[in-house]
Amino acid sequence: MICNDRLMKQINFIVEIDKLKSIYRQTTLIDESRRENDAEHSWHLAMLTMLLAEYANKEDIDVLRVMKMVIIHDIVEIDAGDTFAYDYEGYKDKDEREKAAANRIFGLLPHDQGEEIHSLWREFEERETPEARFAAALDRVQPLIHNYYTKGGTWKKHEVTLEKVKKRFHCIAEGSEILAELVENIIDESVKEGYIKK
Amino acid sequence: MICNDRLMKQINFIVEIDKLKSIYRQTTLIDESRRENDAEHSWHLAMLTMLLAEYANKEDIDVLRVMKMVIIHDIVEIDAGDTFAYDYEGYKDKDEREKAAANRIFGLLPHDQGEEIHSLWREFEERETPEARFAAALDRVQPLIHNYYTKGGTWKKHEVTLEKVKKRFHCIAEGSEILAELVENIIDESVKEGYIKK
Repeated sequence: MICNDRLMKQINFIVEIDKLKSIYRQTTLIDESRRENDAEHSWHLAMLTMLLAEYANKEDIDVLRVMKMVIIHDIVEIDAGDTFAYDYEGYKDKDEREKAAANRIFGLLPHDQGEEIHSLWREFEERETPEARFAAALDRVQPLIHNYYTKGGTWKKHEVTLEKVKKRFHCIAEGSEILAELVENIIDESVKEGYIKK
Repeated sequence: MICNDRLMKQINFIVEIDKLKSIYRQTTLIDESRRENDAEHSWHLAMLTMLLAEYANKEDIDVLRVMKMVIIHDIVEIDAGDTFAYDYEGYKDKDEREKAAANRIFGLLPHDQGEEIHSLWREFEERETPEARFAAALDRVQPLIHNYYTKGGTWKKHEVTLEKVKKRFHCIAEGSEILAELVENIIDESVKEGYIKK
C-alpha cells in the first residue's frame, strides 16, 4: 500500500501500539466505573507535565523530553504486562520482561527513531537525569490522586500499609520537592480518613 | 487538604479532565474490541507527533507546541460531547457548545495556565499556524489508519461515501504534503477493497 519503507515501519509501529489501550492498570478512573488503561494514563501524565512542570526541582526543565518520556514509558507493557506497584513477586522479573519488550517493539521503528525512543525509555527507567526524575514523580502523583479521590482505591483493595506507600512515594522529592510536600499532605489526610492502613 | 490556591486549582483540573477517558468516539480500537475514548486517542496523536513531525510542511516545526495541542484538543468534549466527523447536523451548534465548554473547563485553572491552554485550543481550531495545521492533519490520519486496519470501520458502518471522505481529508495537505500522499494511497486502496463506497 505504501511504497516508502521508512513510513511503512512508522505506520506498523503506530498500529502495534494501539494495543496499549487494552493494557489495564490496577488504578480505576476517578468515577470508579472501570480500571484505567496505559494509554489514557500516559495521556494524563502528559497533561500533568504541561501543568506541573513549574514545580520541577530543575529550573528550565526540558518539557518536551519529559513529555516524550511519559508518552512512551509504558509501551513495553504491551508485551510485559502491567506490574502492580505493590506486587513484589512480579517485580522480580519485571526488568527482564520489559527489556525484551523494548527490543521487540522499538525494533519495529526505523533504526534512528527506535534508538531515540529506546534511549528515552532507558532514561526514564534509570531516573538519573532531572527530566527522568520529574517524569517518575508524575507517574507516582497521578495514581495517588486517583486513590485519594476514590477514597482509598487500590490502597484499600489491596490493604496497602502506610509503610509501603511511603516507600513507593519516597522518590518524588528527587524530581520535585513541592510535589513531595503535596504528596505528604495527601498521605496524611488519607491515613486520617482511613484510606491507608497505619 | 492543600493550602496553596494555585496548586489546588491545578489538582481540581487534573481531576476534572479524568472524564475525558469516558468520552467515546465513533472509531473503534484496531482490534475492534470496543470504541476508542478521547484520552487514549489524544495519547495516540502525541505518539504520531513524535514519529511523524519530520513530514510537516514547515521545517523545524515546534514539536512541543504540536504535542500540547493534540494533548488538549478534545478536552472541550467533556461538556460538548464527541461530534462524529460525518454528522452534519451535529456540526451546526458544535462551535457554540465547544466554546462554552472551553470557558468552563479551562476556567478551572490558574488564570495564566487557563489562558495558555485556551489559546492553544483556539490555535488548533483555527488551523492558521503550521503547528495547528500539522496537528489537525494528524487528527485525521489516526482514525483513517483505524478505519483502514478494521477493514472499513466507521466508513462502512455509516456508509460514508468517497466524496465525503475526500472532503474530510482535504485539509491534510495544508499540514503535510507527504502525509496527504499517504492518505490518498490508503483511500484508493480502501475503495478497491470496498471499505469506502464509490
